[in-house]
This record gives sequence, C-alpha cells and structure tokens, in this order.
Amino acid sequence: SFGQGAIPSAESHLLLTQSGRDLYTELAKRSPKALTQIEKMKRNLAELIAQPLQVPLPKDAGGGYTHEQHKANQKAIFEAGVLYKLTGEDKYAEHCKQLLDAYAAMYKSLPLHPEKKEQTPGKLFWQSLNDAVWLVYSVQGFDAIKSYLSPVEREYLKTELFEPYVHFLSVDGEETFNKIHNHGTWALAAVGMAGYSLEEDDWVQMALKGSAADGSGGFLNQLNQLFSPDGYYTEGPYYQRYALMPFVVFAQAIANNNPDLEIFEYRNGILIKAIYAAIDLTYNGHFFPINDALKEKNLTTSEMVFGIDIAYKETGDPRLLSIAAYQGSFAPIDAGFETMAALTKSEAIPYDYNSIRFRDGKEGEEGGLAIFRPYSANSKDDAALIYKYTSQGMGHGHFDKLTWLFYDNGNEVIRDYGAARFLNIEAKYGGHYLKENNTWAKQSIAHTTVVVDEKSHFEGKYKVASAAYPTEILYDVSEPNLQVASAELAEVYPGVKFIRTMALVQDEAFEYPLVLDLFEVESEEAHQYDLPLYFNGQFIHLNSPIQAHQNQLKPLGNAEGYEHLWNLGEAQANAELTQFTWLLNDRFYTWSSQTDSDDKLILVELGAHDPDFSLRNERGLVLRTQSEGKHYFLSALETHGTFDAKNEVTVNASNQILELKLITRGAEKIIQVMTKDSGIREFKIN
Amino acid sequence: SFGQGAIPSAESHLLLTQSGRDLYTELAKRSPKALTQIEKMKRNLAELIAQPLQVPLPKDAGGGYTHEQHKANQKAIFEAGVLYKLTGEDKYAEHCKQLLDAYAAMYKSLPLHPEKKEQTPGKLFWQSLNDAVWLVYSVQGFDAIKSYLSPVEREYLKTELFEPYVHFLSVDGEETFNKIHNHGTWALAAVGMAGYSLEEDDWVQMALKGSAADGSGGFLNQLNQLFSPDGYYTEGPYYQRYALMPFVVFAQAIANNNPDLEIFEYRNGILIKAIYAAIDLTYNGHFFPINDALKEKNLTTSEMVFGIDIAYKETGDPRLLSIAAYQGSFAPIDAGFETMAALTKSEAIPYDYNSIRFRDGKEGEEGGLAIFRPYSANSKDDAALIYKYTSQGMGHGHFDKLTWLFYDNGNEVIRDYGAARFLNIEAKYGGHYLKENNTWAKQSIAHTTVVVDEKSHFEGKYKVASAAYPTEILYDVSEPNLQVASAELAEVYPGVKFIRTMALVQDEAFEYPLVLDLFEVESEEAHQYDLPLYFNGQFIHLNSPIQAHQNQLKPLGNAEGYEHLWNLGEAQANAELTQFTWLLNDRFYTWSSQTDSDDKLILVELGAHDPDFSLRNERGLVLRTQSEGKHYFLSALETHGTFDAKNEVTVNASNQILELKLITRGAEKIIQVMTKDSGIREFKIN
Ligand SMILES: [Zn+2]
Ligand SMILES: [Zn+2]
Repeated sequence: SFGQGAIPSAESHLLLTQSGRDLYTELAKRSPKALTQIEKMKRNLAELIAQPLQVPLPKDAGGGYTHEQHKANQKAIFEAGVLYKLTGEDKYAEHCKQLLDAYAAMYKSLPLHPEKKEQTPGKLFWQSLNDAVWLVYSVQGFDAIKSYLSPVEREYLKTELFEPYVHFLSVDGEETFNKIHNHGTWALAAVGMAGYSLEEDDWVQMALKGSAADGSGGFLNQLNQLFSPDGYYTEGPYYQRYALMPFVVFAQAIANNNPDLEIFEYRNGILIKAIYAAIDLTYNGHFFPINDALKEKNLTTSEMVFGIDIAYKETGDPRLLSIAAYQGSFAPIDAGFETMAALTKSEAIPYDYNSIRFRDGKEGEEGGLAIFRPYSANSKDDAALIYKYTSQGMGHGHFDKLTWLFYDNGNEVIRDYGAARFLNIEAKYGGHYLKENNTWAKQSIAHTTVVVDEKSHFEGKYKVASAAYPTEILYDVSEPNLQVASAELAEVYPGVKFIRTMALVQDEAFEYPLVLDLFEVESEEAHQYDLPLYFNGQFIHLNSPIQAHQNQLKPLGNAEGYEHLWNLGEAQANAELTQFTWLLNDRFYTWSSQTDSDDKLILVELGAHDPDFSLRNERGLVLRTQSEGKHYFLSALETHGTFDAKNEVTVNASNQILELKLITRGAEKIIQVMTKDSGIREFKIN
Repeated sequence: SFGQGAIPSAESHLLLTQSGRDLYTELAKRSPKALTQIEKMKRNLAELIAQPLQVPLPKDAGGGYTHEQHKANQKAIFEAGVLYKLTGEDKYAEHCKQLLDAYAAMYKSLPLHPEKKEQTPGKLFWQSLNDAVWLVYSVQGFDAIKSYLSPVEREYLKTELFEPYVHFLSVDGEETFNKIHNHGTWALAAVGMAGYSLEEDDWVQMALKGSAADGSGGFLNQLNQLFSPDGYYTEGPYYQRYALMPFVVFAQAIANNNPDLEIFEYRNGILIKAIYAAIDLTYNGHFFPINDALKEKNLTTSEMVFGIDIAYKETGDPRLLSIAAYQGSFAPIDAGFETMAALTKSEAIPYDYNSIRFRDGKEGEEGGLAIFRPYSANSKDDAALIYKYTSQGMGHGHFDKLTWLFYDNGNEVIRDYGAARFLNIEAKYGGHYLKENNTWAKQSIAHTTVVVDEKSHFEGKYKVASAAYPTEILYDVSEPNLQVASAELAEVYPGVKFIRTMALVQDEAFEYPLVLDLFEVESEEAHQYDLPLYFNGQFIHLNSPIQAHQNQLKPLGNAEGYEHLWNLGEAQANAELTQFTWLLNDRFYTWSSQTDSDDKLILVELGAHDPDFSLRNERGLVLRTQSEGKHYFLSALETHGTFDAKNEVTVNASNQILELKLITRGAEKIIQVMTKDSGIREFKIN
C-alpha cells in the first residue's frame, strides 16, 4: 500500500480549510487586533524566506543544532502553509514547497539517526517520536499548499517523502505504531493525516485500526484503552496534556473526512472529556505535577491551544473561551478561527473549577484522582486539595501511592517534586530524564505518603506496582462543607495495607478550608513508618525543640531516595500533637499531627548525592514512628493569618487546632478537632 | 510651652482641606470608580463603628494584641477623620472623637511600656518610634474633625492627650527628638504637625529647629544631614522609603502653613529629589535590598503612596502618575485627590528608568550608588546593574564594600541577602532582626565582594567602617553602550586597598547587556581572597570538574558568616577562564572569570549554624585565590539564550565569551573579550 495510489488532488483535507480562511478574512476586517499572532507569523516567515534554507543532515541529539533546525523547519512548513491558505500569497507556498522538496531530496537515503535513542530511533531525529511529530505538522503544511503544487510536484512529494516516511513510521516502526502508548498515537496521527491529505485510504485505515487492521492497535483502540471513562490519561496530567495533541488533531481530521465515524461522540465523547479533564487537572493554569512532570507546563502550551479550540468548535461551550482568553493565542486552523471569532464577540464565561474525581484505568476501576476545591471557589487563588490514588501510570509513574498535593493562594503548598529533568538542556544529561529522576523523583520518600522501613512502595518495582492499584472506598462531595475521599491498597509492602482518607472542610471555626488526613496502615509485623511533608515556605515554628545539625550534615539514609536527603535536624515529637507552622508569601500554614513522645521529627533538605547539583534544594519534615504493626497517622492542615509586609501587619499567625482525635460512634468514623476559639468541631469521614 | 496656648480653633491645618473635599466631590460625580478605596474605607469604618471601642492598656510587644490594636486605632482615627472631612457625616467624626477621648482618658497615667525596647521606650508601644507614628496619623484625624468638636472638647483633647504626648516625645524623648536619624524625623513630624493643628507655634519651632532651637537638631537640620545632595538617604533604599513618610507629610504641613519657608525648594528641592530617588532605587517596583532590607517592600507601600502624591502635587510631573497607577491607590489627602483626578484624565506617561548615580554623604563626597540600565530600556524586565560604593549607612549598614547586584528579566540574578528578619512575626524572635542578621546578613562573605582572609571588611567594626567610605574615580554614562563606574577604598583591611570598576555594555556580539567587572586588590602582604557570587537559579554547568561533597557537609569556616555556609563541593579552577552557567526562569546566565589552576571554586549553600532554620537556603559560588598581595579579578556576566519550556525549544544555551583579558594601551585600560561568533571586542574602562 505504499505508492500504488493516485496522484493527490489539489484539495485540502486537514484542519485548515476555506471555512478558516473566511473567518480570517472577516476577523481581519472586524477585529484585526485578534490576528496579532498571524501578523507575527508573517514577520517570522518574512525573515525565514530572506535566509537560505537550512535542511542539514541529521546529526545532533535533542537540543543540538540539527535537532532544533528540523523542529524549526517543521514549524516553518506548517506556518508557511497556513499563511498561504489564509492569504493566497505565493511566496508562502513557495517557501513551504522548497522545504518539503529539500526533505524529499534526502529522505530516502537517510539512515537511522546517528544519536539514536534506545529502541525507537528516528531518521530526522534521535527518536521516532520526533519524526512522527514532524510529519503531523509538515503534512498540514503540504495540505494547505496542495492547490499551489502541480500534479507532478504533488506526486514527487508523495513518492519521495510521504510514502517512505509513512513506511518508516508504520512498517519499520511497527512496534511503536501498534503500541497502546502516546508514542503510538503520534505515529498513528501522522500516518492517518498523511492518508487523508495524500488520499491514501489504506494509511487511514491502518491509523484507525492498527497495521494488522485486526483492532489490536490503532486509534480507536487507543481511545478505548488510554483514557479512563472520565477522560483521565493514566500517565497523569503532564502527559495527558502532551498526549492530547495527536488525539485532537487526528480526530479533527477524521471528523472532517469521515463524519460517519462520529469520532467526537466515540465512547461517550471520550476525547472531549479528556480535554476538559486537562483543564480540571490544573491549578492557576499549571498541571498537577504528579508522576514525571515538568512544572513549567501550563494551559498555554500549544497542545492545549489546539485542544481547547477543537473542543470549542465541537461543543460551543463558552467556558472554554475563558481558557482560550487565558492562553492568549489560538490554533491557526478552522477551530482556532472559530474560537477567536467568538472571543472577539465577548462570548466567554469563566471556567468553573469544581471538585471532581477522575477514575483511572480503561474501565475506571483502577483507583482515581480526587480534586477538591472549596465550594463556591471564585478565584484562581483558592485552595485545591489533590488526593492521588491512581494506578502506577506506566513507565513515567512514581511510587507515590495515596499521596496528596495542596495548593492555596496561587502557590504550591504541599508539593511533589515532579520530574528531575532539564528538558532540552544539553549540558544536563542531554536534556534526558536525569538519573536522579529514578533515584529521587520516583521514590516513595520523595512524596507525602507513608514509607515503610525506608523502602519504596512495591520495592520500587515497576511491574509489581503496575499490577496493583488502589480501590476507592468513598468519594463524596455532595456535602460541600465536608468533601471526602477514601481509598485503600493492599500489599504496598508484603503484608502491609494502606487506607487513606482525606477531606477538605469548610467550617466556621477556620478562616480558610481545612485539610483532614487519616492514614491507616495495617500490618501484622513491626515496622518503621515515615510520613514526609514536603512543605513550601519558610520554617516558622515547631512545637517541640529541634536539634539542628549545625556543624555537619549527613544523608538521612543510603538508598531509595533517602540518600538524597540531608538530615538538617531532629526532634522528639510532642506527646499529644505535633504542630509545625511555616510561612509562604503572605499566609501561614500549620500542620498538626497526632504523635506520641516516641515519635521523631526530622527536617530534611534535598541535595545529598547530587554530583551535578541538579536537584532543587527543597525541604520537608518527616514524621517517623516505630510501630508494632497497625498504626494510623491523623493530621490536619490549616491555612491561617496574614503576613502583610506592605502594611507591616501580621494577624492570626497562630493557628486554631489544639487537639485532634479519631473517634467512632456506632458505624460513624469521626475526626474530632478541638479549636482555640470555637470549641470542639466534629467531621464524619465515612 | 506645654498647655499655655489658647483653645484650638475649628479650622483644619494639615493635609486634607476643603480643596481635597472639592476634588472628592467632583470625582464622585465624574469618575466614581476612582474612589473605590474610599468606599472600602467607609465599609471598614462601618464595621468598626458597629463594634465596641478597644483601647487596651499597653502590654504586648510588636505583633502582639495591644500593639496591633493601637496601630488599628491610629488608622481608624485617621480614616474616620478623613471620611468626616469628605462626607460631613457626623458618625465618622463621632467615632474619631470617641477614640481620641479614650486615649485622652488614659494617656496621662500611662507608665512606660512594660515591654520597652532598649533605650527608646514608648508608652502606647514598646518603642517611642511607634508612638511618634501614632501621633502623626492621629493628629490628622483630630485635625479633620476640629469643626465637629466643641471648644471644650478640643481643649480637653489638647490638655489630656496632645500636650502630654508632645511632652513625652520632645522632652522625655529629647535624645531621639534631636537625633539626626529617622526615628527623630517621626518625632519631629509628630510634634510639628500637632503644633500646626493645635495651633502651638512653639511645638512647630521645636520641630523645625530642635528642642534647643539652636539648629543642632530639628527638621531643617535633618534635611541638611540625612540626604545626600542627590536625595540619597544614607541607610539605603529600604530605609529611604521608610524615612520618607514623616519627611513628606510634615513638609506638606509646613508648605500649607508656612509657605514662606518654601520647604519643597529647601536645599535645591532635596525632598522632591529624595522621592524621585526612591523610584530610581527600585527594580520591577522592589527596592534594591542593600543593607538591612526586607525584600517584600515595593513602591506600593503607603509611604511611597504619600510620597508620590505629594511630589505630584508639587511638581505636576506626569511620569509620577504612572507610578501612582502602578500603586493602585492614593493618599486620602489633598495631594492624593489631585493625583487621582489627573490619573482619571489619562495624563500619565511612563516613568523612564535611566542610569543614574546617587552620591552618598551629606556633602555628596562619601561614595555613591551607581545604577546602570540599558540605553533605551523599555520594559520593567530589562537589566539593571547596581554598583554599591556607598558609605556604611549607619547601624543598618552591611560590611559589603564595593558590592553589586544584577537584575534581569524581572528577577534578581545576582543578589544580596537583605536582612535576616521576619518583621512582625512573634515566633521569630518577636519580629526583631534575628541574630543571624549580624552573624550572616551583615558580614562581608554574604556579599558579592572580595573577602580577605575570611574576615569581614573593617573587622566587622561599625565605627571603623563608618569612618571610611569609598571614593568615586569614575562615573560615566555618556557613552550609552559602555556605561562605567569605578571607585576605590583604602584600608578595608590593614594595608589592603580595593578598586572596583564595573561596566554595563551593549554590544552587537552579545544578545543582552553584558556586565564587566574588574576588582583590583592592592596589598603588600600575602592574603587569601574570596570572591563570592550569589547567583539566583539552577546550576547548569561549571567548566572544571567539581567534587561534590555528596555524603557529608561541613561549614566553609568558623566565623564572620563563613560558619553559615555549607561547603557543597569544590573544584580547581580552569587555568585560563572559569565559566559558570545557571538557568533562571527562561534565560541562561554565564559568569566568566580569569583564573589560574591554583584557584579554587567552592559551591556553597546558606544554612549551617542556623538553629531555628531562619535562613533561606540560597546558593553561591566562591572563587578563592591565594595571592602574594596584589591581585585582580576580571569577570564578566553574560545573559543569553532562551529556555522555552512551553514550546520545548532551547536556544543559545552556551555563551559567547571564550577569553577575558585586561590590557593597557597608553593610558587606556581595556578589557579585551574574545567571543565565539564575533571575534575580539574591546571595552575601555577608564
Ligand atoms: Zn512524584
Ligand atoms: Zn547586604
């Protein structure tokens, strides 16, 4: 099926069509300011057109010259195509054509990339993933200039570039192509979109159903397997964002060319759910950094711009327009022009971030992720509690079972390290994931969850971890003042079961929403349990005397992430309640946890065994208890007070909680909280 | 002169008069949105009026209940007065009166504050400074409601409150009152403003000329002595801001009541110069944190709001309106309403931050502070180089002779620690300066300047340091592409002289402005010289292999600040040029310094000997050389490249400089820079 087809027609089949051009023309008249980014694109192209083409032989790894140049070219091909489609000016089409021709001239003779990465080498790039991405963009450029090209030119590009390229991705790269994995999605999208544009239905069918066309691979199968029924992508928000791009652009191409497939309705509208999920998986625009995740990523990335615009085109939901407004840009495709046209008519309404729980697993039965937001949250600075009881999330997953994150006042307050990686920075291990990503970021001690005997969950074994997943016991947000979720997981360690219950409470005794946390550990054996708290901010007060290691620091342990933590100081815990207060910007946070005097508190700082000084020197507080076996940690996090540096006023620097108790009353499990000013408050958590 | 005067009239004499009220009325009609803050003031007052008065017996230290309550009351008295003046509604005057009466009822019987601070106890507060501030605000409240009060009521407040209060500040507190120091300014302003409002000219005369009226103290004398001829306040920007408040409000009162004194023209308009200086002493709105300074402070503080409004009233400079717009608020006085009225008429033009040098010392002969900004800077994110060669700056000064700071892209890049203090946070040493302020923040090693033999400048002796000051050799910004300043200081250590020359260069070889730094040390004896670099960002690359202390950390030294630095790792320097690259947000910075292979580089992190975990864990790189005596450090700082996490593109991660050389050509001193792409560039620095 490579090369038997006819010469491609002059017609465009992909994401930018006459409809987009008409909207562009209308906007140019009615609201030219809305097209600033197109004007910028024109200026960039003018510069590029003035320079000689640079289509080097592939040589460098990620971040290196040829890598970046081929990425720049893929962008230029795409944008030149867009500009030709919008303006009809030949200079753009000519630039696009010349670039494509240059690739066509060399493509067939290219060997695998000299810096090939692991098992999935590319040709233009070190890994085939990048090659697939290149094609997704470049074929859109081609599609936009088809009418400019003569039939001979179209045929030339087809036989010299697109056919061998599709062959490389789908035949040489068959394993990736059929894999139920995000790398596969890019390959499918690339081949499928090439199929539509080059009018090769075989390519489309392979992309939809896998190269064996038996349903073991392919796009539809990926839609079945890679998202949970709630639209959650099992690798987590960072990769959910990244994964969306090939899904939504290919889906848009399918919708345009095979409306009969009703792709956006497929599996109860799973793709649209996934786009909304990506929005809900953010705080202040930034994705929750669970699993391997770089914290810089936010809703303004181009994947999300394409995603939001395509979802808006499909749904007409005016809340999406407020996200588009936040993004400040649109995708230069039909959907993007529709979104921008609606924005200029002031049709946006705010996106309402509500509490929501995403089930994980393709059937939704492999745990989940609960996001609690205060009832009637009305600002991006409001609190958010994230309780993670998802499955492992494939190879980028962390050993962080039943962990949590907390945001408030625009900031990370209780945080996850995310990934240890300097993306695209050559000097830092070539921009790859650092070895510290394995030795630190993935380890259990890097997370605010219980660590038994200084070992990571499931012995840090990916296969064992992947076979297990938490079971949700409860998720209830029907009472807005007491939102609660509970999940359990057996055999996190041999014979050790975790049950964690977390709640976000709004109660008159507290100035801000209160977090409650009951972490039950069931075991027959005696163990050491560590519960770290990765707080963000400046140490203000701990209610038991802490001995700082003032003159010498040693790591907290030898392995499984402990070797990366400096032990800054230790305290014997208070016999009743440990209380730790820190300051972050203008608010105080106090963590209270039931302790007894045998428990230990260890203040730690990241940075030991870090020969290249790659780790951020963040701090945490570890609560350590030696237990006969069964144990529970009962904790609460209060947000309180104001440190107003401008007016030099500090209020409520001290917190409300005096005592925490777990009591049962019949079948009810209740956390009893003694407060300073409002007596005893009770919160039922089951 | 206490109590002999007549009953005060019903007339207002201070900062809010009929003119302010007229503007208020006009704005309320024309642009009610501009008065949001007045509406908010009304809502606050409505709440206060509904509650019982709280005028407790003074008891608590800073941050404690009675301290904060008396501060809240001073605000309420002021604002209730303002609202009465603006609206004529009796309820405001009545609230103001009741508060003043409550103070009058207790004032005479008050002892010194039980938590009295050092040598300057207050009555309402722990230190008399706070008492003076209270009066500055409260007498303005009184002044605004004079017409509401009966003569008997006015007399009562005068004899029971204001007379004894003025007596306390000027007679009991005579030493502070006559001191040439910011605490004295507050006392003078309080007494002087009380004098105008209560119509006691003796008080005014004391305030203007000191209690002996011999010119040894007093406001005019302070204007002569506390500011340099350029309007620089010797304690530095943080205290410049703070000091401004009593100067400008009292000056405004003087201008209103004694126009004959031409107070704003006094000493070539020194007060207006000081207000402009405070603006120029900021980056991105934040004051340069030299000497004891909290970094949270910015141009929006109320001192600056009063300062800008009063300066605008005086000068009509529309650039000040853009600062007022940034502040987002105005002072509720005549000047504030004038400023707001102009703002609503869109009369603002941007404030042009230019290179400027402030001479220090009352005659301008005690060194200075050079601020270099790129020529045609047009964004708040543009670079700024601050070269500090000021005098010691009194008790809040640091031992940081010839140090520098660098800002870029909205961030601190090369930074000063500022002060070690949690202002108003009781749990942190009662909100006082921490002991680490002396042991760390003030020490020389805490700064990006040379430290000899691990000792602070002038042996860390305040008196010795105060007797010395740098001499400016050169300050030349006439060539916008090569702005340069040079200063020298002898006997920083016995027999050791420093000469530092810094330049900000704009050259086609460099993407962003380049910093050049020649630090010459002259000495007859052999010494160890340390040059630290307090960089902000993540370690990317050092061009010589660094041995990290992976498994154990020890402090760098035993005293003078060295005991607070963990030694993270060491490297032998490159035999030609040490190059160190770090990443901050989306830009790279590379510091290059001529070294030889005997030199050592030590990566350090703050936090050793910090028993209460009060210090921020910032990092620095120390260049250490053992020298026979005479030595120079020749260094450059490049800003380069982009780390675009959103688009996953990194460009120019490597820098331009390959070689640095100091050469002389006749009388010319030239820094020769060999670049990667543009050959040799030469910069003459004398
Ligand atoms: Zn993690
Ligand atoms: Zn300092």
